[in-house]
Formats: sequence, C-alpha cells, structure tokens
Amino acid sequence: MTKILIIGAGRSTVSLIDYLLKNSAAYDWKITVADVDIKLAQEKIVGQPNGVAISFDIKNEEKRRAVIADHDFIISMLPAFMHGDVARDCVEFGKHMATASYVSADMLALDKEAKSKNILLLNECGLDPGIDHASAMKLIDEIKHQGGEIISFKSYCGGLVAPESNDNPWGYKFSWNPRNVILAGQGTAQYLLDGELKFLPYNRLYSETNVIEMEGYGKFDAYANRDSIGYIDSYGLNNIKTMIRGTLRQHGYCKAWNVFVKLGLTDDSSKITHANKLTYSSLLASFLPPAKADLKERLKNFMGSAWDAEIEKKMDYLELFSNKKIELPEGTPAQLIQALLEEKWKLKANDKDMIVMQHEFEYSLPGKNNQKLNSSLVVIGKDQNHTGMALTVGLPLAITVKNFLTGKFSLSGVQIPIRKEIYLPLLKELEENNIIFSEKIIS
Amino acid sequence: MTKILIIGAGRSTVSLIDYLLKNSAAYDWKITVADVDIKLAQEKIVGQPNGVAISFDIKNEEKRRAVIADHDFIISMLPAFMHGDVARDCVEFGKHMATASYVSADMLALDKEAKSKNILLLNECGLDPGIDHASAMKLIDEIKHQGGEIISFKSYCGGLVAPESNDNPWGYKFSWNPRNVILAGQGTAQYLLDGELKFLPYNRLYSETNVIEMEGYGKFDAYANRDSIGYIDSYGLNNIKTMIRGTLRQHGYCKAWNVFVKLGLTDDSSKITHANKLTYSSLLASFLPPAKADLKERLKNFMGSAWDAEIEKKMDYLELFSNKKIELPEGTPAQLIQALLEEKWKLKANDKDMIVMQHEFEYSLPGKNNQKLNSSLVVIGKDQNHTGMALTVGLPLAITVKNFLTGKFSLSGVQIPIRKEIYLPLLKELEENNIIFSEKIIS
Repeated sequence: MTKILIIGAGRSTVSLIDYLLKNSAAYDWKITVADVDIKLAQEKIVGQPNGVAISFDIKNEEKRRAVIADHDFIISMLPAFMHGDVARDCVEFGKHMATASYVSADMLALDKEAKSKNILLLNECGLDPGIDHASAMKLIDEIKHQGGEIISFKSYCGGLVAPESNDNPWGYKFSWNPRNVILAGQGTAQYLLDGELKFLPYNRLYSETNVIEMEGYGKFDAYANRDSIGYIDSYGLNNIKTMIRGTLRQHGYCKAWNVFVKLGLTDDSSKITHANKLTYSSLLASFLPPAKADLKERLKNFMGSAWDAEIEKKMDYLELFSNKKIELPEGTPAQLIQALLEEKWKLKANDKDMIVMQHEFEYSLPGKNNQKLNSSLVVIGKDQNHTGMALTVGLPLAITVKNFLTGKFSLSGVQIPIRKEIYLPLLKELEENNIIFSEKIIS
Repeated sequence: MTKILIIGAGRSTVSLIDYLLKNSAAYDWKITVADVDIKLAQEKIVGQPNGVAISFDIKNEEKRRAVIADHDFIISMLPAFMHGDVARDCVEFGKHMATASYVSADMLALDKEAKSKNILLLNECGLDPGIDHASAMKLIDEIKHQGGEIISFKSYCGGLVAPESNDNPWGYKFSWNPRNVILAGQGTAQYLLDGELKFLPYNRLYSETNVIEMEGYGKFDAYANRDSIGYIDSYGLNNIKTMIRGTLRQHGYCKAWNVFVKLGLTDDSSKITHANKLTYSSLLASFLPPAKADLKERLKNFMGSAWDAEIEKKMDYLELFSNKKIELPEGTPAQLIQALLEEKWKLKANDKDMIVMQHEFEYSLPGKNNQKLNSSLVVIGKDQNHTGMALTVGLPLAITVKNFLTGKFSLSGVQIPIRKEIYLPLLKELEENNIIFSEKIIS
C-alpha cells in the first residue's frame, strides 16, 4: 500500500483529490488530506473509503514531521512560501514530493541531496506553471525534430470567467487565491524581446502590456510574468530572440488595474491603522493628490490621458466613489482593496470560470520561410467549486504523481514537466479529460 | 561596576562609543564593543582601558544570549530588523536596552513584560528619530504651556554633504548605510494635510515633494517619511490639521531620483542573474521601453516632461550612459545601483557631511493671530569618520543612557525621547556639544 499525503485542501485541490481517490482502489493508495481547517479536508473525502482527513498546522513542527514520516508521497498545495519546511522534511525522511508552484530557492537548495537519496521533488506541475511547460515542450521538441529553430516564443495563460458568467465590467472573478491576484506582478518582470534583455518593474507592468487575440474568444490583455529568462535554458532555446511568459486578463482590465497600481492601492508593505473609520471613497481621496474638486474629477485629473469611460465604468462597479464603509479594522492598502474585490468579484454558485492559454511560436525550418504557430487551450469550469482552475491545476499534478508511482517515469531531484517521459503521458491523459490544445499554423 | 554592551560598531557608532568610553572612569563603566568584524570593534576602543572588543555574530544564539546575560545595559546599533532577538533576550534576562531605530512591532510586543520587570527599552533616540522628537516636544510643551494649540507641524531632517565638500551635481554623499538610502521610502507614506489623511505610495514619493527653505542654506527637497500619523498621539497633538515628517535632500535631488523609481531601478525584490555580463548602459536600456534611438534620447522620451538639463547632468555624472561594467555577479536592481553610487557618492577622507533639521510650527495663542515658528539645526561633521551623522545619532543615545544609568530619569517599557525628564537634560547636554537649534518666529 502506498500512502499519499495532500497538504492543503483549498479551492484548487478538488480535482486533484478526486482523481487520486478515484484511482486509489486500483493502485492500492491510501490518501490523507490535511488542512488547518479539518472541515475543508473532510468535505473532500466524503464517502471515500481510501480517504482520511486530518487537522494539520504546518507550523507545528513535531506533528508535521511525524505525519510526513508516515507517508510515501507528499503533495503540498500550501501557498508557495510554505513548501520549504515540507521539502526539507521530505528529503530528510526520504519521501517524494510534488507541488504546483514555481521552484523556489529553498527547493533548489535540496536538489543535490534529493538526487543522492533518489527522491523526486516535482514542481511547477499545475496549470501555469505546469500544462504550459508540458504543451510547449511537446511543440518545441517536434519543431527541433524537424530541424527547426525557435526564434520567438510567447506563452500566455489566464484564469478568467466564462463568457456566459461574465456579468461585470472587469470580466474577472476569483477562481483561486484572491491575494495572489491583488499582488500579482510585484517585483521586476524579466524577459527577452528582439534579442534585448528587458526588465519591467511593477509600476509599469499594467500599462506596458500586449494585446493578444484568441480565435473565438476575442482580445485579451497580457502582462509579463516574473521571470521568463530562466526558461530559455530549461526549454533548450539557446538562440531564441524573444521569450515572454505572460498572464491574460480580459481586454481593458490592465489599464483599469493600472489605476490601483499608480495610486498605490496595491501596496502590501504598510499598514493603515483605524481603517474601519474610512470609507472606500475617503481611502481613495487619501491616495489622491490634494485638490478642491469632486472625487471622480480628482481621479480623472490624476490619471490624465490614462483615463477613459471604460475605466470609469469599472470603478463605478466597485463602488469606489461611494460611502461604502471599510470593514477591516486595519490592513495594508492591498488588503483593504482585496476585501472589496472579494465581494465584487465573487464566483457565484452556478458561475463558470474559464482557463485560457496560448503559445505563440515563430520558428525557422530548413529551406522554408519562417513559420508562425499558435497553440491554444480553453477550459470552461462546471460551477463555483468544480472550476476549470481546480481541474487544470490539480489534474496534471495528480496524473504525474500517478505516472511516477506506477513507474511510467523515474527521475530524482528537482524536476519540472519538461521531459518527454513526463509530458507525453501527461498530455495524453489530459486530452482524455478534454483538456485539448488546438494548433494553427498562421503563415 | 556597570557593564555596557554595544552591539554593532559601524560608521554611526564612533561618537556613541567615544562618549561612553570618555565617561567610563567617572561612572565605573566597563564597555564591551561587539561586532561580526572584530577589527571594526577593536578600532573603536584603541587605548581605552575600560573598553573591550569582542567578535559577535547575532545569529549565534548561544553566544548572543551568554554575552547579553553578562551585561547590564545593551545598546543595539545593528540594522533595525535585527533588534528583535536582542530585545527578547534583554527582557528575558532583565537587561535594559537602547536603540536609535524606530519602535518595531517586535519591540512593542515586549512592552508589557518589560514594564512588569522594570526594564527600559529605549528606542528612536538617535538623530531622526531622536533629536527631532526631543526638540519638537520641548517646543510643543512650551506652546501648550502658553495656552497655545498646534495647528500644523512639519518636521524635516536630512543627512547631506557640507557646502564645502559638495562637489557632485547630486549634492549627496553617503554618511551612513547606503542600502537605506537606495531603498528609502518603499511602502506607503502616511501623513495629515489640512485635516485630510494622506497616503503617498513609493511610486509617487519622489515626484510629489515639498521644497523648504533654510536660512543661510537655501532650498531643499522634502519627501514624506513612512508614518507621521502615529506621532499625533505620541506628541499629544489631538486637534492638529497638518502633521508631516519628511526627509531632506538637496533641491533637485528628488526629481532625479524619481527617474530611478520610475524606471524600476530601485526594486529590491527581484534578482538579476548574470549581472556582470551587463554594463550600466545596457542595464538602463533593458529597463527602457524598446525603441530605435540613442539611449539618452530613449530615457528622455520615457521621462517626458519630468526630464530636464539638471537631471541629465546628474545622470551623466553617474556614467549611466557609459559602457561601465557591472561588477556584481548578480543582484537586485537596487543592489546594482547601490554598487555604482557607493563609488560615485563616497565621502572622501577630508569631506565633511552635514546634518540639517527643521521644524515648522503653526499654532494659535489665546487672543493673538496665529503664529509661525521655525526651529532649525545644522551640524557639520569633521571628516569621513567623525561625521555629523555619527555625532548626532550617537550622542543622544549615549547621553540618554548615561542619564538613565545615573538616575536622572527612571522609566520602564518601550520609550522614545518625548518626556521632559528625558529631553530636557538631553537637549541641554547636546547644546554643550554645539548641537544647538535656532528658533525664529515668522509671523
């Protein structure tokens, strides 16, 4: 019997846990679902004889180590910054581990020891990062196999709301951790453009965006992800001129979000005390340069040419100019804005979310003109709980863990899903689950 | 015999250590100077029979606790974020403690326990915070004593370079920790202006500045400090309409520094790898939007109306458009810029630094028109090592520790120098050391 531990039972874990439980009888797995909130864990295993729910606080070192030592494979669905302790325990006790998060410095530091103990530390095996790596590498390997060379690779992904549930002017609702959406992009994005290294800081990230088109789904804004440069090596794209990974939002979202960035409302480092004495309009007024004018006029003046009627509609929808009271007793500007958006951008019971991903390749082929190829994926969720997000984050992780446990591949140390032995069976099974890319050669 | 431990022997500690050693015979003090770099500690106690230098790594918990337990009064001159462990040890072992840093959440959490053990945790007792508190409170208490009420209080301070040593277009050289200068203002500044709470984020901090005048010294730029609101209560200024604490730079500095902020060159959260493959001009190019033009033209276009000839002179001075190589193998943009500025803004052996501080009060007096009062301080350093900065940071701390140890005041818990029993003898002895405010009633 193989004992699998899943740490964290939040909204992105539904499909992961379902899949593993469904396969548990066939492969003789026992699945433990652990969460600080035991109810969250219990909900996920209702009626499943091979599932156990436990209460689990990552900060309780003694219990954490005991529980990890008692399992064979650990899947951490915690926020990314919490993986470090789990990973160290895993390597110490000789347990394999998987996450859907970016490889952290903590994780990378364990690579050598994990390899020496023949332990797998699988990361970036969710949607983005995850499915993007697998699907991109399949195309890259195919192009290389034809003797081609990649000149430009742009890869975009967004967790949005399906057209039929899109009833707010932002075209956005929360299908995953709202905090990550509010803080998205803080730091400096790094990418390669026409052979030049580009650094784009947060204060310019939402104004220096690209617009992309997806057949049948219209236009999207794309802002650059944190680090695209590191993947040039991982993907083996040595002579590439343009390499950008980005995040998609509905067209028009970024220029509106830029208002918050410019004002300073997404800062998460400074606490505003006595916030519950403020309204959202007084908060906005406090962030605007002093002037004797109507609040909306002050905001328009502040934004200058970066303001338009579409942005105004979005801000009105949020009741930003209203006397709506702030409920939090204190919080950073980012936390105060998050509280407002959690109310306004809530995914309702029957709302469907939508995952969109698009890879855009330019490549040379021997004796031919340069080619352009787009590869696109759209996944629509079922409802508030069975989201496209949970499906596309959880399924790649679950499938890959299964493939490892059943001997389909054998690797150790820090890995991401860029090797054939991982991505081929993964993409095949994703297709069986209707997660299918459509490819189109453009020229 | 009283055993005093000074942790940290960096450039701001010269005058502090000198003062305590000078008084050590009279008061029967033994002074231990502790630093990771024992040479730094040894230099400070040369020829002083009551001084001992020890090597001390704050992260070595066992040694840290043993050394603290063996002393009576601990002065921490470490970077602010390192005070927490020292403070916890001090309270546990019943030792008094003092710092020149802002009261942190860590420190405040120890207030109750310190009070119950009758332990002093003195903070903000350097220059700014420190001398500003003491000198402002003296005037505030005097105005209140006359039945007056403060309407507006603006307090500015800067550690600059003396006119006779000012030989670069920025009017700035490093007289203290360069890292603090590069990162200054990150977060959201909070202050009160004409009765309205104002929040000013970092991306606007260096463009929405004030200009102040100091008689005999000309104009200075002032940008808002992190949190001015908290001091309304501490200073007892309940009906005040305007309350701003700010930092001074030479006039013209802020609009030039704003170029770095806008570009994103002061970001400290994202690492640029292989930085030593870059030059400062290629770094700048990477931070600029793509365009086929001369680098300086691209920067001018990017800054638009926020560019002028003075800024250009400052950037030329830094060799920002040159092929000067970056030496650091990797680093955040802030670290790469710091390396350049440490070279360009070095305080030379005979350079003198200059401390400027100005309080600007507006207040009502019964039966009179509103009054305006400015109180100003200028301190010129001696040379590269005996800086005005070291004097004005170290002396208030040393004097107040002496006053506490000799029974001039008796307080416990977290304190800052705003009480008469602290500030009166402190300001008196500062005057004896030529640190003298000049006051001027303006109307």
